[in-house]
Amino acid sequence: MKIQSQINVTSYNAGGFIGKYQQLIKETVIPYQYSVLCDEAPDTEKSHVVQNFINAGKAVKGEDVGDGFYGMVFQDSDAAKWIEAAAYSLNVCPDPKLEETVDNLIEIIAEAQDSDGYLNTYFTIKDKEKRWTNLLEGHELYCSGHMMEAACAYYEATGKDVLLKVMLKNAEHIYNYFIKDGNEGFPGHPEIELALMKMYRCTGSEICLKLAEHFVNTRGCDTTFYRRERDARNWTVWGNNADDNDYQQSGKPVRQQTDATGHAVRAVYLYTGMADLASTTDDAELYEACKRLWDSVTKRRMYITGGIGSTVHGEAFSVDYDLPSDTAYAETCASIGLMFFASRMLENEVKGEYADIMERAFYNTVLAGMQLDGKRFFYVNPLEIIPGISGVSPTHRHDLTQRPGWYACACCPPNAARLITSFGKYAYGESSDTAYCHLFADGDVSFENGVKLKCKTAYPYDFTVNYEIEKGGRLALRIPAWSRKTAVYVNGESIAFEALNGYAYLNLNDGDNVRLELDGKPHFVYASSKIPALTGMTALCRGPLVYCFEGVDNEGDVMSLALKTDSTPEVCGYDDGLLSGTVKINVEAIKSEYTDSLYTDTKPAEKQFTASAVPYYTWGNRGENQMRVWMTAK
Amino acid sequence: MKIQSQINVTSYNAGGFIGKYQQLIKETVIPYQYSVLCDEAPDTEKSHVVQNFINAGKAVKGEDVGDGFYGMVFQDSDAAKWIEAAAYSLNVCPDPKLEETVDNLIEIIAEAQDSDGYLNTYFTIKDKEKRWTNLLEGHELYCSGHMMEAACAYYEATGKDVLLKVMLKNAEHIYNYFIKDGNEGFPGHPEIELALMKMYRCTGSEICLKLAEHFVNTRGCDTTFYRRERDARNWTVWGNNADDNDYQQSGKPVRQQTDATGHAVRAVYLYTGMADLASTTDDAELYEACKRLWDSVTKRRMYITGGIGSTVHGEAFSVDYDLPSDTAYAETCASIGLMFFASRMLENEVKGEYADIMERAFYNTVLAGMQLDGKRFFYVNPLEIIPGISGVSPTHRHDLTQRPGWYACACCPPNAARLITSFGKYAYGESSDTAYCHLFADGDVSFENGVKLKCKTAYPYDFTVNYEIEKGGRLALRIPAWSRKTAVYVNGESIAFEALNGYAYLNLNDGDNVRLELDGKPHFVYASSKIPALTGMTALCRGPLVYCFEGVDNEGDVMSLALKTDSTPEVCGYDDGLLSGTVKINVEAIKSEYTDSLYTDTKPAEKQFTASAVPYYTWGNRGENQMRVWMTAK
Repeated sequence: MKIQSQINVTSYNAGGFIGKYQQLIKETVIPYQYSVLCDEAPDTEKSHVVQNFINAGKAVKGEDVGDGFYGMVFQDSDAAKWIEAAAYSLNVCPDPKLEETVDNLIEIIAEAQDSDGYLNTYFTIKDKEKRWTNLLEGHELYCSGHMMEAACAYYEATGKDVLLKVMLKNAEHIYNYFIKDGNEGFPGHPEIELALMKMYRCTGSEICLKLAEHFVNTRGCDTTFYRRERDARNWTVWGNNADDNDYQQSGKPVRQQTDATGHAVRAVYLYTGMADLASTTDDAELYEACKRLWDSVTKRRMYITGGIGSTVHGEAFSVDYDLPSDTAYAETCASIGLMFFASRMLENEVKGEYADIMERAFYNTVLAGMQLDGKRFFYVNPLEIIPGISGVSPTHRHDLTQRPGWYACACCPPNAARLITSFGKYAYGESSDTAYCHLFADGDVSFENGVKLKCKTAYPYDFTVNYEIEKGGRLALRIPAWSRKTAVYVNGESIAFEALNGYAYLNLNDGDNVRLELDGKPHFVYASSKIPALTGMTALCRGPLVYCFEGVDNEGDVMSLALKTDSTPEVCGYDDGLLSGTVKINVEAIKSEYTDSLYTDTKPAEKQFTASAVPYYTWGNRGENQMRVWMTAK
Repeated sequence: MKIQSQINVTSYNAGGFIGKYQQLIKETVIPYQYSVLCDEAPDTEKSHVVQNFINAGKAVKGEDVGDGFYGMVFQDSDAAKWIEAAAYSLNVCPDPKLEETVDNLIEIIAEAQDSDGYLNTYFTIKDKEKRWTNLLEGHELYCSGHMMEAACAYYEATGKDVLLKVMLKNAEHIYNYFIKDGNEGFPGHPEIELALMKMYRCTGSEICLKLAEHFVNTRGCDTTFYRRERDARNWTVWGNNADDNDYQQSGKPVRQQTDATGHAVRAVYLYTGMADLASTTDDAELYEACKRLWDSVTKRRMYITGGIGSTVHGEAFSVDYDLPSDTAYAETCASIGLMFFASRMLENEVKGEYADIMERAFYNTVLAGMQLDGKRFFYVNPLEIIPGISGVSPTHRHDLTQRPGWYACACCPPNAARLITSFGKYAYGESSDTAYCHLFADGDVSFENGVKLKCKTAYPYDFTVNYEIEKGGRLALRIPAWSRKTAVYVNGESIAFEALNGYAYLNLNDGDNVRLELDGKPHFVYASSKIPALTGMTALCRGPLVYCFEGVDNEGDVMSLALKTDSTPEVCGYDDGLLSGTVKINVEAIKSEYTDSLYTDTKPAEKQFTASAVPYYTWGNRGENQMRVWMTAK
């Protein structure tokens, strides 16, 4: 049974939680990011992205553009991610002016493509002769991949194929270089694999499928490739270690890999491509490798917030159970990539576990990456902030207390934008006979298999999800593992169901009404004692939301609080004015009254205290203050 | 009132705890370290220290020794620290064969001194022209300082002044260069300041005192010095950042410094010299600066074990309260330096606080630095070890689970050796009318002021300390802050006393017998909630000993244990066969039984468990296993 998740879904609805976010992206993030790309945003690092494409266009015509490139070697991808986000936004909410802006940008990009199909402004402007000589650092395949994703998204949203044709020609160029001409190598930063799978799905191009297979299957077979590549050239971008195969997941053929290693974003992008290929080609061996890597990531190397890549050293996975709260890296992009991976795992096998993790990553780390006003972004998502230490101590410099603006390396902001605008692609999936509801989001959805429904819900702040079935069929509703008590009603009648791999399957008729009642009771969570940093601690969760305790709600000090885990947390009412609308939870706690001594043999006096928690994704929106997800448990 | 702590004390006694350690140093560590210096130790990194001196001796005679230097730029100091340790050992236990070995080495060293008094094998062999052009990294003053300390110690132990004369000539050379000839600069690695104070005390040389004052007072006055020095030369040792004045404590004149910053060993060596100078010259302003820095170190930046310099980045002090157990650096040498600092603070003012910290550093971090058999050493002293993470994770690479052998950078082993053999210098002090007992150690002591006593005790495993007064006078007995119940008996009669600044003062006659009974009850310690890493945790201490929990005593798993802090820990009997003789403590605990889930909302089942603790200094002597000082408190 083929399950397709990357379907065209209309789920935009200004009333729902997701809809509100999509509106924010449309109204604030997309216009702002475009102004950055054009170097028109005030108080922002120069981007030069659009100018790079303009200059590359001149360069391919033989004009001398001199020192016409500015930015990171992967600067092109900012444009690609922005187009992709704009495309998804157009998909859920037409906007002729935005479409025109995208069309213009695409024209500029098309001009920058060389006659042989090559497209990359860094190498086109700087030195054509260096093409493909530094797969380790050059990001050419990475940039192509992102532009392929943009091309597919824009074609799906508008039916316009200018960029799609550009990228098909680019794919052919890459195919010729790596397969026809037999040049060795695989991407230093995996990405193109998953993009090629999108191209294949979108266009049916066998070249794209073969290229994806080629990159997946050759990866890690020759562990000396990067070293030999390095030795054969006399330049470098950052001086990356060509022998650190773990960093770029090339230490073993991917089918033999068992542990998630190295740069976390690279890792999950690669696994996404692998899982996509496995489901598309029914490659059971490849899916087995994906399952092992999934388990490595989610059962031993993931924060409760769905953050992955715990160490700043290489923005990478560390060893099993090394998940410190305060020095966490947990890049926003890595959790976005984890959602990609989860969605492709769902194409191989419908298991609630995959959707649970996808949801965990989204509602916690991904959303935390963006300020509530959409104007500033975190790359790094710690689970504990202590002003004076966080961002200051040599080991905590990356753990900022406040979201900064646009970075020189601007990967996360547009990545978050494209993820949020395409939320429907993760929320829903389908096979020929079943419509899958993986995530809960207010909005209208039409499936290609004929099922059509309207979802009404105030999730994740209300735990009732209503589905009005316009066109019936078989519906698979995810029953989240965190929901200890779940009820399903069809046309007002409670129905008995047995969740199969985390999903309830219902056969529905036109006009039916389904009501899913999930468990909205907050619960305390305990970490495995194998995580040294979390022994004796507890976290508070409600539905998919991990909560955190900020100083501003707790007399400035959350460090001396211990939560009474045998008490019942009190869920406050939805407060429209708090943190763009949220629900606070109060918990009975013990506050220890410490003296000034660094160490004392006098047990600190204790008093009762009501501790207040807010969802983790809202943290850091009220100035610099303490923040903790994991609290001492009493 | 002048208080002198660097007095000649005979405290060697094979029966006591310290005596046993001194015997180990004499029988195992000193011979082994000498074989290393001579490149005769098997399975050890090449040292080349003696050969460097031989080659430098040839070089000063004009012979071509080519590439005759091997090792670190500060390699000479290994020989100096070894001579110093040997001298202290000779002081407490004569050994003609060892003395002959030292004499021979001193002869070789003397030959390596240039006719102008300069002494440093690195620059003498490599390039004489580079002398004094890299104070930032060159360690010339550091090596001279260590050799001055060795010279004083050997003169005090044997009355032989060959090395002392060499170093007086060397001091004169340095004085001429920096003061007479007016060349700018101060040591990149402070050390010589404290050494010059020893030279002044030992020889009365005013040149030494003036030089110490010069280096202390010019330090940090010109914050551009290292940058200008760097710009003026075309070579570097490691490429140290010349602008990082915090690293080498040169960001401000020392009298204005308030926070302990930078490389922890450099910091405490500097503060030691400052405190020494302050007491010798009655410099109240300088002592005030020392007090501020003392408070910064001990009230905000010190581990319970007396470890300091919490971060691996620069082996340095971090910010206030950043004291993680698992990624601690806490170099052995830094705690040795903290003892130096404490001992010089006691010369300014007799306060129990100084001696308490000196003792804390010694019985925990300093002793933990050495394997119980004296054969292997820790540089880094974490307070938590988790096999699989410690020593492996990118952020924990420096936190080894087992003591390694001799390093290329061999600072800590000889430093520990010289500290332990000179324990009496820290244990006792004197003024013209009072004999001070700062630390408790079995042995005989003669004070210059006439007081003479025999101390009998099995401290730190027994809390009765007996003093037989051979020659009476005024005795000041430290009453440790950790001793909640203390009794003093004179000739069997309990006497009332009021501790003044942590000391009980007694006027004693010849033949009197004093018995001090300290509190041997174990106690739980709580850290300030300002230390984020330690909230909700407790540590177990008894007397000066911090205890730790190792897997080997606790069914392999200390992570899932929570100590019941309202229970009474059970002190086991002294076990001669355990860890070279120690006392275990059992504590009632709760063991949580975790499932395999990384995170679960099911509270783990709990069962009663008796947890066993051993002194921290003994950890890691029974193979690789979990270790924790701070445990979850129940």
